Amino acid sequence: MTGLSVNRLYVALVHYPVTDKNGETIASAVTNLDLHDIARVCRTYGVRGYYVITPLADQTVLVNRILDHWTLGAGGKYNPARRQALERIRVKTTFVDALADIADLEGRRPKTVVTSARRRAGSLSYTRLRGLLMEPVPYLLTFGTAWGLSEPFMGDADFSLDPLVGAGTYNHLSVRSAVSIILDRLLGDRN
Amino acid sequence: MTGLSVNRLYVALVHYPVTDKNGETIASAVTNLDLHDIARVCRTYGVRGYYVITPLADQTVLVNRILDHWTLGAGGKYNPARRQALERIRVKTTFVDALADIADLEGRRPKTVVTSARRRAGSLSYTRLRGLLMEPVPYLLTFGTAWGLSEPFMGDADFSLDPLVGAGTYNHLSVRSAVSIILDRLLGDRN
Repeated sequence: MTGLSVNRLYVALVHYPVTDKNGETIASAVTNLDLHDIARVCRTYGVRGYYVITPLADQTVLVNRILDHWTLGAGGKYNPARRQALERIRVKTTFVDALADIADLEGRRPKTVVTSARRRAGSLSYTRLRGLLMEPVPYLLTFGTAWGLSEPFMGDADFSLDPLVGAGTYNHLSVRSAVSIILDRLLGDRN
Repeated sequence: MTGLSVNRLYVALVHYPVTDKNGETIASAVTNLDLHDIARVCRTYGVRGYYVITPLADQTVLVNRILDHWTLGAGGKYNPARRQALERIRVKTTFVDALADIADLEGRRPKTVVTSARRRAGSLSYTRLRGLLMEPVPYLLTFGTAWGLSEPFMGDADFSLDPLVGAGTYNHLSVRSAVSIILDRLLGDRN
């Protein structure tokens, strides 16, 4: 919640509904480094909040134990920078709960933007979304774990974002790398 | 080694000499996800090789076991995309060994560029290094683990790169995020 950030961007990492290797809809497990790496990059770029979405009760307990360690417990004393990053994480059971939480904080429902490794019809360029983020409107930028967000979920979003393209056709970034690069493209200084 | 890549960029992840929280020089442990995430982003952006530098014999054994699983073993059959990324990793005992290996491959010693979270006198902007990478000269872009590359090591490099700056003063990215963002800035399509 730094005063330096002009955007009203939030990030969500979705563990359900996502697809597995065979295209089936699953709930994936939460990965410890997805919490840490993504919280750190969100904090670095002034993202207002980072939502971890999991419907699984045992995963919610696990994530909250990790967060307590780093924000309230010994971890926060040992590494204050890590505390400052992880305290922006909010765990929610459903994506709708995250939307409601942002609506409470911002006074209006956020626009939703989904990301994918595959190009979707009508997807926004980075330049275009960078421009939209200048407006005084909250946005929720959403990433899928496992093999990506399920197709019906993506169809419900207000916008989709162009996929990242590197050199050639190989396109298998970790979600940690994808969030990092995309936040830099949307919010970073270009020099 | 894709024909689409025009740069001659290599990446090194250094586990010695790096500093700990108190500024002492140490050898850090290799992290499994540093292998995977960084290999995947290197492969995506057409980096020619990814050197993992560790002087510790047990760490070398560990890394080679992981690589064998994903390139020669069951992992490579299960996930061919992961194999294509991890087969670009080379484990070396020292940084000098990595330089020699690149000299063998490229016919000349690479220029070295170090990265740091702190600004160094005379550091290159991303635009400037992007320009240098257009020349037919090999470059080795070097990242430190733990609390970063040791000062004497950085002083030996040909160049240093500007630190990443987000919104405000918080600047604690994981090395996985830093490599991802920096490769996108140096080699990514700008749109």
